[in-house]
Amino acid sequence: MKVKITGVGLYLPPNIETAADIAKKIGKTTDWIINKCGVRERRVSLIDVDEMGAIAGKEALGDNHIPDLIINASGVPKQTIPDTSTFYQKALGFEGIPSFSIHCTCLSFVTAFNTASALISSDIYKKILIISSDRGTRGRNFDEPESASLLGDGAAAILLEPSCHDEKSELLFYNMKTWPSGAHLTEVRGGGTNKHPQDPNTTPADNLFTMDGPGVYKIARKQVYKMVMRSLKATHLHQNDIDWVIPHQASGKAVEAYVSIGKFSRNKVISTIESFGNCVAASLPMSLAITIKNDNIKRGQNIMLIGTGAGLSAACAIFKY
Amino acid sequence: MKVKITGVGLYLPPNIETAADIAKKIGKTTDWIINKCGVRERRVSLIDVDEMGAIAGKEALGDNHIPDLIINASGVPKQTIPDTSTFYQKALGFEGIPSFSIHCTCLSFVTAFNTASALISSDIYKKILIISSDRGTRGRNFDEPESASLLGDGAAAILLEPSCHDEKSELLFYNMKTWPSGAHLTEVRGGGTNKHPQDPNTTPADNLFTMDGPGVYKIARKQVYKMVMRSLKATHLHQNDIDWVIPHQASGKAVEAYVSIGKFSRNKVISTIESFGNCVAASLPMSLAITIKNDNIKRGQNIMLIGTGAGLSAACAIFKY
Repeated sequence: MKVKITGVGLYLPPNIETAADIAKKIGKTTDWIINKCGVRERRVSLIDVDEMGAIAGKEALGDNHIPDLIINASGVPKQTIPDTSTFYQKALGFEGIPSFSIHCTCLSFVTAFNTASALISSDIYKKILIISSDRGTRGRNFDEPESASLLGDGAAAILLEPSCHDEKSELLFYNMKTWPSGAHLTEVRGGGTNKHPQDPNTTPADNLFTMDGPGVYKIARKQVYKMVMRSLKATHLHQNDIDWVIPHQASGKAVEAYVSIGKFSRNKVISTIESFGNCVAASLPMSLAITIKNDNIKRGQNIMLIGTGAGLSAACAIFKY
Repeated sequence: MKVKITGVGLYLPPNIETAADIAKKIGKTTDWIINKCGVRERRVSLIDVDEMGAIAGKEALGDNHIPDLIINASGVPKQTIPDTSTFYQKALGFEGIPSFSIHCTCLSFVTAFNTASALISSDIYKKILIISSDRGTRGRNFDEPESASLLGDGAAAILLEPSCHDEKSELLFYNMKTWPSGAHLTEVRGGGTNKHPQDPNTTPADNLFTMDGPGVYKIARKQVYKMVMRSLKATHLHQNDIDWVIPHQASGKAVEAYVSIGKFSRNKVISTIESFGNCVAASLPMSLAITIKNDNIKRGQNIMLIGTGAGLSAACAIFKY
């Protein structure tokens, strides 16, 4: 599908929380956090997801650009109703633009990228703003040291438009799979109809993030390896043909696996987990935005977006920038 | 876009709650409820949205059909993480099928229908199961009589596939708009990062549905009229060319407006609000499923799906069944 990223935006909340800061709250040492999760520090946002996302969205739009669709591709909404995309639009000062959310937790951005490409290819929209904004620190359970040490806040956005016939930019491949047998491995059980906030049986822990890190890693390692192999085979590409691997920043170990198991050379695999933690759905587009803004990605290069998410799901997209 | 509904499913919870039952809880009379909201009775589900949606999904799939994508198109999730689509898949007994949610509250189904059509047209998927399942009765605020009298529970599903060249079935038109100036008119402020369930400043009312009915109606009436006119103009169709109007069942008055203001003949406008209430995103596909299952819709007929949602948003799709 002939699409091109024509704008990119990033919001890194200024407030930094270090491993030392969090160590006291979870009864662990700084070294334990860094060794276990790979997160030296993360950002903690004092503004909500809509304002965070709108800052990134405004940068991606640049001057005088008005999108014809806004897609929210985040892990957790601002509130149950209306949709978070409405609040982005409000913060951006627009009225009357269509907007909705695509949700599959940490893979929301990759799935939104593919879906937006299909909407552009079908001539329904021509200028789609995708925003991922997550404030995972709001849902940390300090009684669960590993998951509490992972989460951070941040937002990123891209503007996606059709690419011209003489341009190389295109989405070459997309694949996603969900295995509900792993649904219990990563959860926020509250916030919906199941463990409703007003239900007396809903416990405080139900409203907080919980993850069986080793359980996820065990399945994810195998499934992500298969996903890499399937993606390369389908596109007739080799690891060497991929210029940049932009993974979801699930954990230090998960990002490292693209080198040790995925067999990509280390300098191609973008890791931002040490500085920003796991920012849920925003992690992947934040890593993409940081790499683009550093002028490291050149037009025509092959980019692999890949990761796992609660579900348990895995997804991969390969595109020519 | 050449797509065709090849299967349809419906779940109506067996437990009926009448206007008389609810009158006591909200300090109003049965007549007040029926005159104000148009809801004589609604279903109250004892099973959660995932099981409700899976029953409808299983019927839409029929025998031996395995979808290659499952889209959840509901108003409120089962829980924050993982995505509700994962739980449908679990209840349906599948593993490894891609799945995600499309969310724009009451318009989630119409938007998912358009998006699924684009994914089919782009040759990404060939058999997409769209499920809308809502259990609005879980979030009723009995201190707000009008909105509490409106909500009901239910689920519906469709299977969408490519249509053949010699078949008439296709999506002719889709349009959606969101006006965030109306965001405060319909809300569940809790359940996300804004009024987090664990935030001491979150009140019980924040976790419940609130709506300024007259405020919504004032804007919606005007915008939906414009949406009808724009849709007919774009497709070169007249009200008489539309065989069935399937509106979101926002309220008795809102459905009636398609006759009084939209100028569609009464026998074409499907109204299910009296028997099932406003079932959030499930209302529209439930009304569609009921009409199809009653053998009232013939292949090749022109169907208009239309409605408003929290946002405030309006959307319309016209397709040949």
